[in-house]
Amino acid sequence: MSDMPPASRYTYLGPEGTFTEAALHTLPEAATRELTPTVSVPAALDAVRNGEAQGAFIPIENSVEGGVTATVDELAGGRRLMIYREVLLPISFALLVRPGTTLENVKTVTGHPVAQPQVRKWLAAHLPDAVWESAASNADGARLVQEGRYDAAFAGEFAAARYGLEALVTDVHDAENATTRFVLVGAPGRPAAPTGADKTSVVFWLRGDQPGALLEALHEFASRGVNMMRIESRPTGAGIGQYFFSIDCEGHVQDRRVGDVLMGLRRSCREVRFLGSYPRADAQEPTVRSGTSDEDFVSAADWLSRCLDGRD
Amino acid sequence: MSDMPPASRYTYLGPEGTFTEAALHTLPEAATRELTPTVSVPAALDAVRNGEAQGAFIPIENSVEGGVTATVDELAGGRRLMIYREVLLPISFALLVRPGTTLENVKTVTGHPVAQPQVRKWLAAHLPDAVWESAASNADGARLVQEGRYDAAFAGEFAAARYGLEALVTDVHDAENATTRFVLVGAPGRPAAPTGADKTSVVFWLRGDQPGALLEALHEFASRGVNMMRIESRPTGAGIGQYFFSIDCEGHVQDRRVGDVLMGLRRSCREVRFLGSYPRADAQEPTVRSGTSDEDFVSAADWLSRCLDGRD
Amino acid sequence: MSDMPPASRYTYLGPEGTFTEAALHTLPEAATRELTPTVSVPAALDAVRNGEAQGAFIPIENSVEGGVTATVDELAGGRRLMIYREVLLPISFALLVRPGTTLENVKTVTGHPVAQPQVRKWLAAHLPDAVWESAASNADGARLVQEGRYDAAFAGEFAAARYGLEALVTDVHDAENATTRFVLVGAPGRPAAPTGADKTSVVFWLRGDQPGALLEALHEFASRGVNMMRIESRPTGAGIGQYFFSIDCEGHVQDRRVGDVLMGLRRSCREVRFLGSYPRADAQEPTVRSGTSDEDFVSAADWLSRCLDGRD
Amino acid sequence: MSDMPPASRYTYLGPEGTFTEAALHTLPEAATRELTPTVSVPAALDAVRNGEAQGAFIPIENSVEGGVTATVDELAGGRRLMIYREVLLPISFALLVRPGTTLENVKTVTGHPVAQPQVRKWLAAHLPDAVWESAASNADGARLVQEGRYDAAFAGEFAAARYGLEALVTDVHDAENATTRFVLVGAPGRPAAPTGADKTSVVFWLRGDQPGALLEALHEFASRGVNMMRIESRPTGAGIGQYFFSIDCEGHVQDRRVGDVLMGLRRSCREVRFLGSYPRADAQEPTVRSGTSDEDFVSAADWLSRCLDGRD
Repeated sequence: MSDMPPASRYTYLGPEGTFTEAALHTLPEAATRELTPTVSVPAALDAVRNGEAQGAFIPIENSVEGGVTATVDELAGGRRLMIYREVLLPISFALLVRPGTTLENVKTVTGHPVAQPQVRKWLAAHLPDAVWESAASNADGARLVQEGRYDAAFAGEFAAARYGLEALVTDVHDAENATTRFVLVGAPGRPAAPTGADKTSVVFWLRGDQPGALLEALHEFASRGVNMMRIESRPTGAGIGQYFFSIDCEGHVQDRRVGDVLMGLRRSCREVRFLGSYPRADAQEPTVRSGTSDEDFVSAADWLSRCLDGRD
Repeated sequence: MSDMPPASRYTYLGPEGTFTEAALHTLPEAATRELTPTVSVPAALDAVRNGEAQGAFIPIENSVEGGVTATVDELAGGRRLMIYREVLLPISFALLVRPGTTLENVKTVTGHPVAQPQVRKWLAAHLPDAVWESAASNADGARLVQEGRYDAAFAGEFAAARYGLEALVTDVHDAENATTRFVLVGAPGRPAAPTGADKTSVVFWLRGDQPGALLEALHEFASRGVNMMRIESRPTGAGIGQYFFSIDCEGHVQDRRVGDVLMGLRRSCREVRFLGSYPRADAQEPTVRSGTSDEDFVSAADWLSRCLDGRD
Repeated sequence: MSDMPPASRYTYLGPEGTFTEAALHTLPEAATRELTPTVSVPAALDAVRNGEAQGAFIPIENSVEGGVTATVDELAGGRRLMIYREVLLPISFALLVRPGTTLENVKTVTGHPVAQPQVRKWLAAHLPDAVWESAASNADGARLVQEGRYDAAFAGEFAAARYGLEALVTDVHDAENATTRFVLVGAPGRPAAPTGADKTSVVFWLRGDQPGALLEALHEFASRGVNMMRIESRPTGAGIGQYFFSIDCEGHVQDRRVGDVLMGLRRSCREVRFLGSYPRADAQEPTVRSGTSDEDFVSAADWLSRCLDGRD
Repeated sequence: MSDMPPASRYTYLGPEGTFTEAALHTLPEAATRELTPTVSVPAALDAVRNGEAQGAFIPIENSVEGGVTATVDELAGGRRLMIYREVLLPISFALLVRPGTTLENVKTVTGHPVAQPQVRKWLAAHLPDAVWESAASNADGARLVQEGRYDAAFAGEFAAARYGLEALVTDVHDAENATTRFVLVGAPGRPAAPTGADKTSVVFWLRGDQPGALLEALHEFASRGVNMMRIESRPTGAGIGQYFFSIDCEGHVQDRRVGDVLMGLRRSCREVRFLGSYPRADAQEPTVRSGTSDEDFVSAADWLSRCLDGRD
């Protein structure tokens, strides 16, 4: 993380034993940081904003449930923060029970509300009569099973040991390829160096008085051949029908075409917030359309200079 | 509800005592229906799909929290249903306590997770030390206060009487004009008759292999002067970065410009699902751009007929 | 020519001996018509408008010189006419002289002003000192050589015999593949039947008060995958910077995507004039983009009907 | 003319006595230059390309007849030249005759072919039986009347004296506000300084292999709020349907939004040729759309720099 201040502490969306913690441990540097769980996404980010932590590790998007709205909204509001890293974690659940429990004994099941739609079909097939109640987190659900409040909890298999439970069933996931995407967020700083396979995140608010403003904003991307990888519309809070947009696109802010998109948005939108450029977890390099490479931008700028000077 | 089958029973997202029930009672016909709360949005809709209920009344959008993803996703998947009516309800919370409780006594607060961001600032200012725990619904929170599990619950003031509580504080809402939008959903049928101030809901999946496909889809609206009032991107479940779009736009499917937009989407998208045309709760009539009125469409079609026949 | 009234007389841009006459003779029906040269394009068209002729055969476009502005303007103004047929004729010139003249004797050269740029390089190379003077037509130039006014004329080789001249040099053309396109114009009627490889011509005037109006008009074509094959901007005569547009596109007005483009133009433009659908001289079939075939249009219209009826 | 080399000689499209010469004399500097008529637009420009003249003054556009194709094509091809000045001249014709000639005596009329459509209605009304023959220029027509070849010539009233003729009728023009636009062209150099009411000319060739390429090119203008004032499609000479585009737009290349358009074209087009920025003859200042002023561009570039540096 190039210019992010040397970090001794990372917060993450807790409690311990969640997928977030599991994802965080895939970062090499996690081994050398103090990792502190928080009760909420805002709490994780506030610690960074207050200087109490140098990074916050939080989920931002789930391939089944969509954007994690708390994260999208928190990054759009308050003091600006930046994303420096992303992690993709395949999500599959284990049904955790107290040792000795059999499937027939399971009358009540818990888990995070987000887990529920991902195990719904499995439940209908295998535990059609079990009653579901939501827990504050998957780990919390495991703790409640440990305490005897529920018979079983859906959580990551890695949570079993921590709560003295055992995994009765593993690899439960209604949707194939369910994946959650996490980001490491820090105070604003110089973006991570380009790797050739990068992603840029930006949030923008349209000028209310221009019809077709969203179309124009999306055209800023399209006309430079910059593919969008995530688009979220979120209410501004100012009333039904008022949105801001949160977008991830291919490329790095140092790529001329991406910088040009950002400047275009900055000019045409009411407000734009740059949320960082960072390596893609999937390391996939983008296809650069003819006429949109850095060389094309430099060459066009040189040509314009010559026109201005009367050379060309 | 013009062609919706005569209804004797409506389901709604329960339990009793929530804002959803309060909103449902603003519909005149609610007085003559059997109103049955369900534990979830899918349950409310399944009752309609199974023919057990003729309508389901559920929240779809909140001006603070955004789309109700369960509703958006459920309407996009499964057997097609249609929206016949919408209701807008201003949302403000009361802090419900057992009679005799004072603000100083409140150490624990509960409420629906969606309520939490709408009372966060108020809590920070007036009950900075109170611990928040989420309940399955605002009404459920009230019940848990009645049972003594928590000291206070945020809910609609109307829930106080039902649970033998009293409203210690009323009119709590961090955001001005917080509003929730509810819809009455039924089996597919002829849309409600146009009123001149209507809204149309549609869901579409882009063709994956065409770059700029979202831009083209949005242009279908823009080129006919049809304003979008809500746009939600939702994951298809097929992996990070795969979306479908749920859009509300001005106008009625019987308006030629709206029908033309829908046909355009139908041709250019992989899949389109029509979710209904219904009167706008705010009764606001749209501005019809020159060249996009029904007369303009009819006149252009007549002209084309004359061209085909060699008259013009 | 399907519904064009039975024709006994065709006018064409004269005089005899021009490329126009040569092109006209490539139409099989020319053998059974009375062919009457006129002094100008307006005269050829006026004869059709007055009912004195059933067809007028005139040049419309040249691959070197561009649109024949008299034709483009005449078809856009006055009583509406329609194009029923097109002919492409490769253009190459012969240098016609009185028998016995050698290249060294040629001091003066004539021809139609349009011919001049197509033989300029040849002249510079072979007759650098010859003086050029324009004639009213290539055939007229040949006549003036016959009369002894000039030493040589550029014209079609076929004109030599008619004027008692001989072709000193043949196959003169500065540009490779120089081609002129001619059209057969008649009174409005039912367009020629679709062949699968057709072209449609249309003229439109933008609404002056909408910025981006040209962009919108072109998008009508692009969004239905209808390729433009010719675009001409012509002054309306109302002042510098006021234009109308004359466009040829792929496809037949009976193709749904083409009809839809035309209706879109009709709604969004101040005025649209349909100039006909007719077989392409090159018989090349268009690529129909996914989602824009007749089947796609019919299927989308059926789907909309079902939505309106509450079936789908 | 800021950086154009000090000029002692200007060529202009002759002969003497044409509207071109009249327009040239409206330039103050014309009084101190040697003014040399040429037989053609290419000849006028070649003199500049060869260094024999420092400027060439030629017509480029007529509000009735459209673009002067020789000028548009010559500026697009060959060694690059630049436009430094424009002149608008209202066009109205006088009918010039030998002294003593009356309207009844006029059996033959001449004039430049471009003049003909502008006096056609007048001729039909006042001299329905007169025979028209085209002359190489209006001035040439006057000379031919002087020599007795024709009875009358349409030309500028100012040509009467030069050829010993008198103006039998003045102020003949079928179209109201007929205007011709002339440009002063020189070797490439630094453009004239911005005046706040400027025009920029550019020529571009689309990349053949991209459908919708024209749409994208026009969007470069539209998305920066740069209005087009002239658009000409011209054949490239490579075959029917192959065009390049010649465009004038509002603003000066030093205006950031115009420079950005040019760079966008440079990247997305196969070739772009900058033809200069120069004061508008009508001195009308453009409306600068919100978000497209120089300040907006500078501010967006500053913001991007801060993003790159980790400040913002």
